[in-house]
Amino acid sequence: MVLDIPKPDVFNAPLKVVEKMMTGAGPSNYHDRIRKSMSLPVLGHLHTETLKIMDDIKEGIQYLFQTENPHTFCVSGPGHAGLECALTNLLENGDTILITCCGIWGQRAELMSKKLNADVKVLYKHPGEQVSIKEARNCFRMYHPKVFFLAHGESSTGMLQNLLEFGDLCREYDCLFIVDCVITLGCAPIYVDKFKIDVAYSGTQKVLNAPPGITPITFSPRALDRIAARKTLVTSYNYDAILLGEYWNCFANHPRIYHHTVCSTLLYGLREAIALFLERGGLESSWENHSRVTSNFCNLLVSNGLEIFIDDEMLRCPSVVSIKVPDNIDPHKVISYAMKNHYVEISGGLGPTVGKIFRIGLMGINATNEVAEKVAKVLIESIKEAELVSKI
Amino acid sequence: MVLDIPKPDVFNAPLKVVEKMMTGAGPSNYHDRIRKSMSLPVLGHLHTETLKIMDDIKEGIQYLFQTENPHTFCVSGPGHAGLECALTNLLENGDTILITCCGIWGQRAELMSKKLNADVKVLYKHPGEQVSIKEARNCFRMYHPKVFFLAHGESSTGMLQNLLEFGDLCREYDCLFIVDCVITLGCAPIYVDKFKIDVAYSGTQKVLNAPPGITPITFSPRALDRIAARKTLVTSYNYDAILLGEYWNCFANHPRIYHHTVCSTLLYGLREAIALFLERGGLESSWENHSRVTSNFCNLLVSNGLEIFIDDEMLRCPSVVSIKVPDNIDPHKVISYAMKNHYVEISGGLGPTVGKIFRIGLMGINATNEVAEKVAKVLIESIKEAELVSKI
Repeated sequence: MVLDIPKPDVFNAPLKVVEKMMTGAGPSNYHDRIRKSMSLPVLGHLHTETLKIMDDIKEGIQYLFQTENPHTFCVSGPGHAGLECALTNLLENGDTILITCCGIWGQRAELMSKKLNADVKVLYKHPGEQVSIKEARNCFRMYHPKVFFLAHGESSTGMLQNLLEFGDLCREYDCLFIVDCVITLGCAPIYVDKFKIDVAYSGTQKVLNAPPGITPITFSPRALDRIAARKTLVTSYNYDAILLGEYWNCFANHPRIYHHTVCSTLLYGLREAIALFLERGGLESSWENHSRVTSNFCNLLVSNGLEIFIDDEMLRCPSVVSIKVPDNIDPHKVISYAMKNHYVEISGGLGPTVGKIFRIGLMGINATNEVAEKVAKVLIESIKEAELVSKI
Repeated sequence: MVLDIPKPDVFNAPLKVVEKMMTGAGPSNYHDRIRKSMSLPVLGHLHTETLKIMDDIKEGIQYLFQTENPHTFCVSGPGHAGLECALTNLLENGDTILITCCGIWGQRAELMSKKLNADVKVLYKHPGEQVSIKEARNCFRMYHPKVFFLAHGESSTGMLQNLLEFGDLCREYDCLFIVDCVITLGCAPIYVDKFKIDVAYSGTQKVLNAPPGITPITFSPRALDRIAARKTLVTSYNYDAILLGEYWNCFANHPRIYHHTVCSTLLYGLREAIALFLERGGLESSWENHSRVTSNFCNLLVSNGLEIFIDDEMLRCPSVVSIKVPDNIDPHKVISYAMKNHYVEISGGLGPTVGKIFRIGLMGINATNEVAEKVAKVLIESIKEAELVSKI
């Protein structure tokens, strides 16, 4: 048979990728050692070496999340897969979930829960505001949710949510506590066990500077009990926490079972990222560093006449800073000027903040005063340039 | 607060990966150019360069699948994500699906469909046998399925399923036709449009020699009509074909919408893999080459007293050859000898063929007589060694 579709011409041009300063809301730059690790030869999904790397990563994630949960592993998929894995396993048809919505991640949890046909209750906050324990308690009284969702860092606004006391509230109501830590793992304190969190997930392409596509997640014994008591099957195979746990060796005295072909290359990147994170001092050092660098960065911007979107310094996320777009400035012009002239990434708003803010991420190896000063300089120059253009 | 979980020691040892001959059922070896591409700097998920690479890849997949479907893209996940994406979008609660089960992939489709609460009918065949159009027609008469699943290549047995006429049968019954092409894309003729296939998906880590984790898939206009007519939401966000299509620019005159953070590194690997596939002659050349090399390989094994699991040469998959485990031989000993002494991967059986066969994959850059002869030599030596050990 002859071919119907001829060879495409676009592949005649070689693949070319320029290096940028990845100071948007993520992905962040890879460390050279991480890049190097990704060109290592492929391994099979059940090779001894691969399983050892998976075991190492599991220990690394337990440390990063500060948890003893044996049920700690990675989902093969982007950060969104962490959220979907959490919700798909914990929710059954008609279950009530209470979602706090302070930006896009609450919206995403709402959409996913509706797709799963849950009874979805949402506690909406203005973008940039956090949820108080009192507000949450009022909603618990009204709705008696079986699952509660909170984003620790709301990357669409740059807000850091307090996590204390919510775990106790959840226990009081026999409710499971899901926390989105995509933007905060490694830059702000998360103690999964101490905070009584039942499911926490993160992303690799933020503070860890690793490639996205493999997403750390942890389930508490309480979460597993709930899954075991389900009346219906988990609708997803790929995100089934029990099947994934079997592959990731999470059950004692249980053989590993082939579940899917994990990408060894992504495992290399993540293992190297965790190793580097540890070598650079680990959690306390990273928390302190992110906090200090973003605080300096905010001061620098304010001294140059810019306004930080989150007023209260205690509510500022130490990895993503949001800056109000000055009056009469087109943010797209600023962003494209910075990229075109300096290969520096500045993100715009997302979801409810579109057009209102710039977002700058100083994550992992980019959380230095040097990077902060460079991106501040580029931002200020780009805003001035956009001002000039708009006056012409 | 002090840390509860100390730094893990396992990261003190550096990451080390040896190069192996990846001649199991996949993943296959990466080409050097693919490895090199994976160490390129990261790009953002909405950067112009990333979107261009995605557009290129889309054209490449349309060529590989021989389809004009605009709704052609990748799912961020392993090959299993392709299957789950197909089923999740096409099936609603209680819909009847007819699954042909000739090995593990039918079993997986069965499990996933049950998780989606479909009305699942299975046409079981002995492992190694294919389904005839007559058998399928009998089942269509009985069950009037809304969705029909067939694996083109059953990698658990090494069987290549004929695809002709099933498309017409599906049209006759207003049924959608899903084909698993994970092991066959690029090694055996697949004409998605001509064969009237509604959803086809593949894997990148087989004939394309690319990293797994990003899975090509295509939906026909008929499949999209069915999705548009759904009464209930697609349960998954990550696998939602409409949302993914919006991100992958599949709708004319429709803006791209952020869906998830695609891994640019995996895109680089896949783009380079398609470019190499085209440079090495494209589809006809690859079909001819795989067919010739595996045929030589089978002859070589037979001349050395081994028996091919699939009797009928026409039913042998040109990428994975299955070989009967000789009497009184422990297949695990053979496999581990080959790995330990030669770093050569030989797969065992999978699902219904566990303990019964060896599986050897000659895929993409490994589909050469040189590789075939080397792995044949290692297999024969390893069997002899296992014989000796068992006699001691």
